[in-house]
Amino acid sequence: MIPLAAMPTEARAASARARRELVVGVDVGGSKIAAIAVDPSDRVVGREWRPIVTGRPERAGDDLAEVVTAVLHEAGADDRDLAAVGVGVPGRVDPRTGAVSLAVNLGWQDVRLGSILEARLGVPVVVENDVRAAALGLLRRGALGPVRDFAYLAVGTGISAGVVVDGALRRGPRGLAGEIGHIVVEPGGERCSCGGCGCLETVASGPAIARRATERVAAGEPSSLAAARPDAEPPRRGGPIPITAADVYGAAAEGDPLAREIAEAAGSRLAWAVALLVLTLDLERVVIGGGVAAAGEPFLDPIRSGLDALRADAPQASELIGRVDVMVAADGSDPGPWGAVTVAREARAAPVPAGREEVGHG
Amino acid sequence: MIPLAAMPTEARAASARARRELVVGVDVGGSKIAAIAVDPSDRVVGREWRPIVTGRPERAGDDLAEVVTAVLHEAGADDRDLAAVGVGVPGRVDPRTGAVSLAVNLGWQDVRLGSILEARLGVPVVVENDVRAAALGLLRRGALGPVRDFAYLAVGTGISAGVVVDGALRRGPRGLAGEIGHIVVEPGGERCSCGGCGCLETVASGPAIARRATERVAAGEPSSLAAARPDAEPPRRGGPIPITAADVYGAAAEGDPLAREIAEAAGSRLAWAVALLVLTLDLERVVIGGGVAAAGEPFLDPIRSGLDALRADAPQASELIGRVDVMVAADGSDPGPWGAVTVAREARAAPVPAGREEVGHG
Repeated sequence: MIPLAAMPTEARAASARARRELVVGVDVGGSKIAAIAVDPSDRVVGREWRPIVTGRPERAGDDLAEVVTAVLHEAGADDRDLAAVGVGVPGRVDPRTGAVSLAVNLGWQDVRLGSILEARLGVPVVVENDVRAAALGLLRRGALGPVRDFAYLAVGTGISAGVVVDGALRRGPRGLAGEIGHIVVEPGGERCSCGGCGCLETVASGPAIARRATERVAAGEPSSLAAARPDAEPPRRGGPIPITAADVYGAAAEGDPLAREIAEAAGSRLAWAVALLVLTLDLERVVIGGGVAAAGEPFLDPIRSGLDALRADAPQASELIGRVDVMVAADGSDPGPWGAVTVAREARAAPVPAGREEVGHG
Repeated sequence: MIPLAAMPTEARAASARARRELVVGVDVGGSKIAAIAVDPSDRVVGREWRPIVTGRPERAGDDLAEVVTAVLHEAGADDRDLAAVGVGVPGRVDPRTGAVSLAVNLGWQDVRLGSILEARLGVPVVVENDVRAAALGLLRRGALGPVRDFAYLAVGTGISAGVVVDGALRRGPRGLAGEIGHIVVEPGGERCSCGGCGCLETVASGPAIARRATERVAAGEPSSLAAARPDAEPPRRGGPIPITAADVYGAAAEGDPLAREIAEAAGSRLAWAVALLVLTLDLERVVIGGGVAAAGEPFLDPIRSGLDALRADAPQASELIGRVDVMVAADGSDPGPWGAVTVAREARAAPVPAGREEVGHG
């Protein structure tokens, strides 16, 4: 992928002049909507984002149409240049109809997002689970080289994995493969957005990390996080969380002991999740993305340490987990929006058939 | 499959007269070797088993050759009737060479079982991981009807899963897919045969269930298990375990409170393992086999209750786990030996190519 900044203005203008040639990929996250516009030569000619108001599916059509218009504008283009839109959504999606039947972290249920957006934008709109789309995007773009067995593990507002086995995206008959964020890791633990207790998401997602830091700072534990957020207090139900996961990793990188402890606890849980994926599926690589992973090395280091701990003193466990390559998605590599572009392109090349077929494997 | 008892003697004799037409499938378990001989019409014409002496790989060739001879004899046949042998082994196997590189629960490492047996028996021998072979056998025999996404979860001396996704066996690039028995469920818990601590196998395998019962009876807790085994005492290191998992499920079925408690604890863990498989892979069915599952309903009931508990009060968790169909392999259905027959037949039809191809998908 060519970073936007590296692209000459001429190329962007030329892309814009070719009509109906831009595909826009929109990644709907738990806290923001990010979009890219891509031309037929795989150049990113526009990039935009908006905050999202969760829990208000009736606003979704407006918000998404707005970000599509904005990213076209950013590309020096307009809606006549738009060929198709792909949308990645954190939840259960029927890729044939574009209906989002379950998006726990957005508070959506049964939103016919595909139809709503097609009516507004006048072009084909393909909706897919965000993380499965991102994994498919990594696969189709050859972003991982010859690796045919990998997972894209998204750690953000929620946790889930997009799984590629034998060079094909695993969706599953219900389109729910990879929902490992709802595996119980602390029986009887904190209530999860899914309704269960002690799910992986309740201990290692962005909000879980932020909540832990906020509570401990509010309880008076010494930390540079307290200085950064002097107003820190335990979050009210549904209220904003004063300290973010990004704050925690920033402070951990500076050596703050409390932040490091919290980062290490999350890393240990995420290492366990990586091991779970490898043991269950036998994978060569796990690429971690999502809002929390954007912290980079301070986020990745504790995960690598956690994997080393699982291997330590256990020669056979070590062989089972193997030398799986764990990495964070490169900054600016946009796996979410690129995944959305990929599903839109594949649907254009081969409409998704009814039944259990994979996206784009028609 | 026609049960052996239902087969007329004439048919068995007829099978035996056809030379080089019998395929023998041998399932090497943690405590016994079970074998069937199958004719070209899928009739089981012989069935045999032997106890296995673990930790002595140099004996493996003798033991396995002996059971092959015995099952042919049982079929009214001899080695001139033998076309091929399949062997399922609980460990990591290179199906191209038949070498067993790692079989934790047998205490084997780098045993060239395929070559050893071919030299003795004079026919092609195909070795595959036992549980993956069993899953492939269920798939090829259409034992589950139109189900294309399922796992065969073996619960015996160890715990692992054979995974079928989109109608194809998942082996993985290292041939290690499905090794969920070594996912850590109790960090810092009991030492596992793999070297790690607190693996699923240490809390829900046959030996784990037996050990728990033995310890609690030895500690003086009232239970019918004490009467059944008046000599019960904590197992010496490497020594025999006085109370077996089968004893525990038998006593649980009779209403013994201690046995029920232990069965419920194991069932809760195994329900978690089923949920893990479903969440990670999106499966329609999980068939549970292996020595412990042979207990039938007293084994299965607590697993179903455990799944109900994971779904309770959690509408979205409930949707994620779904209505996955959990069942135990039918008594006498021999998924292990049939799996071994299947890999032998598929290798004859299409030799396993080098590289990452699946067994029999040449």
